Amino acid sequence: MSPYSESLRVHFTGGEDGAWAIRSITPIAGAVSLAAAPRLHMAEGAATPRAGAWTLDGVTSHMRYTTTAEALKLRAVQPPLGRSAATRAALIPIGKSPTWWALAQDDRRAIYEERSRHTTIGMDYLPRIARRLHHSRDLGGPFDFLTWFEFAPEHEAAFDHMLARMRASEEWTFVDREVDVRLTRMT
Amino acid sequence: MSPYSESLRVHFTGGEDGAWAIRSITPIAGAVSLAAAPRLHMAEGAATPRAGAWTLDGVTSHMRYTTTAEALKLRAVQPPLGRSAATRAALIPIGKSPTWWALAQDDRRAIYEERSRHTTIGMDYLPRIARRLHHSRDLGGPFDFLTWFEFAPEHEAAFDHMLARMRASEEWTFVDREVDVRLTRMT
Repeated sequence: MSPYSESLRVHFTGGEDGAWAIRSITPIAGAVSLAAAPRLHMAEGAATPRAGAWTLDGVTSHMRYTTTAEALKLRAVQPPLGRSAATRAALIPIGKSPTWWALAQDDRRAIYEERSRHTTIGMDYLPRIARRLHHSRDLGGPFDFLTWFEFAPEHEAAFDHMLARMRASEEWTFVDREVDVRLTRMT
Repeated sequence: MSPYSESLRVHFTGGEDGAWAIRSITPIAGAVSLAAAPRLHMAEGAATPRAGAWTLDGVTSHMRYTTTAEALKLRAVQPPLGRSAATRAALIPIGKSPTWWALAQDDRRAIYEERSRHTTIGMDYLPRIARRLHHSRDLGGPFDFLTWFEFAPEHEAAFDHMLARMRASEEWTFVDREVDVRLTRMT
């Protein structure tokens, strides 16, 4: 049984408290951004989100494009969240265009992996970069996906390199909203 | 642009009022059912659901398994909701097992279509049966999918035949909760 198929509701709240200090909030694409806030609180489960400047709401879910062969490779090297050395994090909310969502499954899969190598690129940075994907399109928020990454400070340059490769891909031509939030763990 | 990729939040409320009279509520699989109620109210959009015996909440979304070739065939024959002759309806909430959700995309697709012929079977009943699928797994409700069907009274036997074929498929061995609600339009 894959742990990655479970539904876990997660609230990300930017505000006055939380375990993560927000170092930067950088709008990458689109008109939507997030207000400045000193801290980020991540709450797992169905609890009511705490008050803050903003809350983004997502849910972990089953894999939408990954094949069995890819999933086996990923599981062999994917690290968990919460590693003690992983004191840096990034929260990257993105939205994709109506054109993307109108594509059929086979077309989206072909762009995602056969042409943009999304999983293949990500694999190059494992196990340095821990990642958890949260879906938010069906929840009706301003973004479609909230991806949370954790890594040690010495791997932030590699993380930036991974993002540059992703953003240069055909898949990213369908990304019409993106914000890049960088964080440092305080507790 | 496919109209089927748009996100539309829909509340189904069983209670004292609504345009549809509930003729029967039949538990098909699993321990979960729905309380008896005389009427069903369907509300589209983000409005707060009205009070009632129960409310099920879903969202229309992009197609998860359909290929471009299948989508083109479907669009050519899929009828809209709200046809004046379609005075009968069915609401069929289902849930799938953790085993299903732990499968990778290629395995789920193979079971869904190559082995169970889900889209192919459905096509046999078009344009007699109008259908709208609502996703609810990411919303956290008791079911994963809420499917709404509309048809004329003379096509209810064909609808039953379609359901029997679906329920006999390999895909349905992963369905662990199912309720079958039948309705008649009153307004």
